[in-house]
Amino acid sequence: MSRFFSARLSALTPYTPGEQPRERKYIKLNTNESPFPPSPKAIAAAAEAAENLQLYSDPTCRVLTEQMAARYGVSPDEVLMTNGSDEVLNFAFMAFCDEDHPALFPDITYGFYKVFAALNRVPYREIPLREDFSVDLADYQGTSGTIFLANPNAPTGLAHAPQEIERLLRANPDRVVVVDEAYVDFGGESCIPLIHKYENLLVTGTFSKSRSMAGARLGFGIANAALIRDLDTIKYSTNPYNVNRMTAAAGLGVLADEDYTEKNCQAIIENRESAKTVLKNLGFEMTDSLGNFLFIRHPKKSGEEIYRELRERGILVRHFNQERIKDYNRITVGTKAEMEALLLALTEIVR
Amino acid sequence: MSRFFSARLSALTPYTPGEQPRERKYIKLNTNESPFPPSPKAIAAAAEAAENLQLYSDPTCRVLTEQMAARYGVSPDEVLMTNGSDEVLNFAFMAFCDEDHPALFPDITYGFYKVFAALNRVPYREIPLREDFSVDLADYQGTSGTIFLANPNAPTGLAHAPQEIERLLRANPDRVVVVDEAYVDFGGESCIPLIHKYENLLVTGTFSKSRSMAGARLGFGIANAALIRDLDTIKYSTNPYNVNRMTAAAGLGVLADEDYTEKNCQAIIENRESAKTVLKNLGFEMTDSLGNFLFIRHPKKSGEEIYRELRERGILVRHFNQERIKDYNRITVGTKAEMEALLLALTEIVR
Repeated sequence: MSRFFSARLSALTPYTPGEQPRERKYIKLNTNESPFPPSPKAIAAAAEAAENLQLYSDPTCRVLTEQMAARYGVSPDEVLMTNGSDEVLNFAFMAFCDEDHPALFPDITYGFYKVFAALNRVPYREIPLREDFSVDLADYQGTSGTIFLANPNAPTGLAHAPQEIERLLRANPDRVVVVDEAYVDFGGESCIPLIHKYENLLVTGTFSKSRSMAGARLGFGIANAALIRDLDTIKYSTNPYNVNRMTAAAGLGVLADEDYTEKNCQAIIENRESAKTVLKNLGFEMTDSLGNFLFIRHPKKSGEEIYRELRERGILVRHFNQERIKDYNRITVGTKAEMEALLLALTEIVR
Repeated sequence: MSRFFSARLSALTPYTPGEQPRERKYIKLNTNESPFPPSPKAIAAAAEAAENLQLYSDPTCRVLTEQMAARYGVSPDEVLMTNGSDEVLNFAFMAFCDEDHPALFPDITYGFYKVFAALNRVPYREIPLREDFSVDLADYQGTSGTIFLANPNAPTGLAHAPQEIERLLRANPDRVVVVDEAYVDFGGESCIPLIHKYENLLVTGTFSKSRSMAGARLGFGIANAALIRDLDTIKYSTNPYNVNRMTAAAGLGVLADEDYTEKNCQAIIENRESAKTVLKNLGFEMTDSLGNFLFIRHPKKSGEEIYRELRERGILVRHFNQERIKDYNRITVGTKAEMEALLLALTEIVR
């Protein structure tokens, strides 16, 4: 870093995005993108919006917010649209954490939580998952901290039922519980209906996965109106025009095409479940992932070896060089053809 | 705010964007947007990019960064692309200011600087402009603070020559000087060539004004590679995919069409200068604005009255209810037809 960089952020360790190699064409199963193109309605709407780029986007994101509210059975003042769900998560760290209110999250979860904590100079505590990677919700009860739970969790794919999250909400009525539902659309159950019952619940979501819009950057937070107003205060102090015109339009387009999204999610779920069966026959061990990814290891090969040998075969997956999970790889569920290529490669590798 | 909102940000006063009314159609001269549509090349590129939204955008923004570097005569590691220039400005507050290094900026300037300072809990000092709204650069010499200068300044439109900024860079070699060039393309002179001479210079810019892309959210920072690495650390700790695919593509499109941009800037400059002549004949007083806006007052009518009477006539301008400038209105320079309507209305109003 330069000699001008503030000492107060000198320990900051940025997030490392999944690799995007350019030297050859890979089957990309490393960043949990959708293998399906965006809805034709999203494409058309974005293209049309591009014609009016000279005008600022609507900072209130009114039309999109109204459609989201209708889709999720909440009211528009209970919705905030953001530049990816990373943005709403960062806003939540800003708004609901501080020196007296640390952030709490599992030791194995979305790697950005601890970066957001460091960025905002908020103390944080990583709470170890159980041996089987499940969250022991009892660890989070009666805390002075703000809780961040990815549900389903990443990279494990394990999910809690909303009734379990509810116990947490009841046990910590004075602290915000953020439920990050980036991967909920592949078999998990959303906590959104609980926002009317618990004023301390913030649910975050993204259009990146189930709605094939990772490249558009569209995320959201859903909570009671008071929490949304808090997040709005942060937004208007950060980047009022955070969602650009084309992305807002694409979001409206895909929301008008929920059948398409539903069909894609079903395909991912089918591909995931049939891959699980084949992988088990090959001797792989895995979590019961409800995400659009698998989290697998093999007793005879290290995670790093499997990662490397897949890469040599033109298949990219994500390996985390982190103590408890270094035996594993996180593999995005792709199309049928991509999964066939993956399973063929893995068969060769562990044979 | 909710009872969950952190006390440490409780004094935060968000930025107020220019109004975007829906009840009727206005001639919109209130947010310094371009009156011209985006380049056809930008529109086409964005529409094409929309077809691959399922894939994350390139976090390094490689292709766009390379084109920007070529355009501005710098190298790619001296360029950072951001989600509007608000984002790179916020990153600069994070990276280069702290308790020991306050932010310094004029009392009358872009209203977001003090919001960024408050958001990042950085002390700041507003240094009064001279009576004629010019910056006395001597006020900024030998400071422990990080300097933010909009050049041309907003809402006054007054600009410094790079040679004057250079004195400031030499006088504060240990502190970063941020020169915000959002409005430089309408007759100002850019400080970008100075980045190779001064390691403490960060120049920021935007595609919102001269390139007709306010609705796409594309901004940039240009500085020596060490400062850009610092800003990159912040970016990868905030939102690595900050520039979406469509915006990056539109940026490439408009950069391939510099004649179009140049022609639009010339039209704005002509419309601005001929409006100045007419307005002077009507008794208006004004700064010698080099931005895409005028900053005018009339000795016989208050700024608020002029704002209101224009609004009644279907013309929106920006009035800041701030002590030193409340007699003024900031009026975006529009097309010839829009300026004719404006001048006609102002003639009626001050007659």
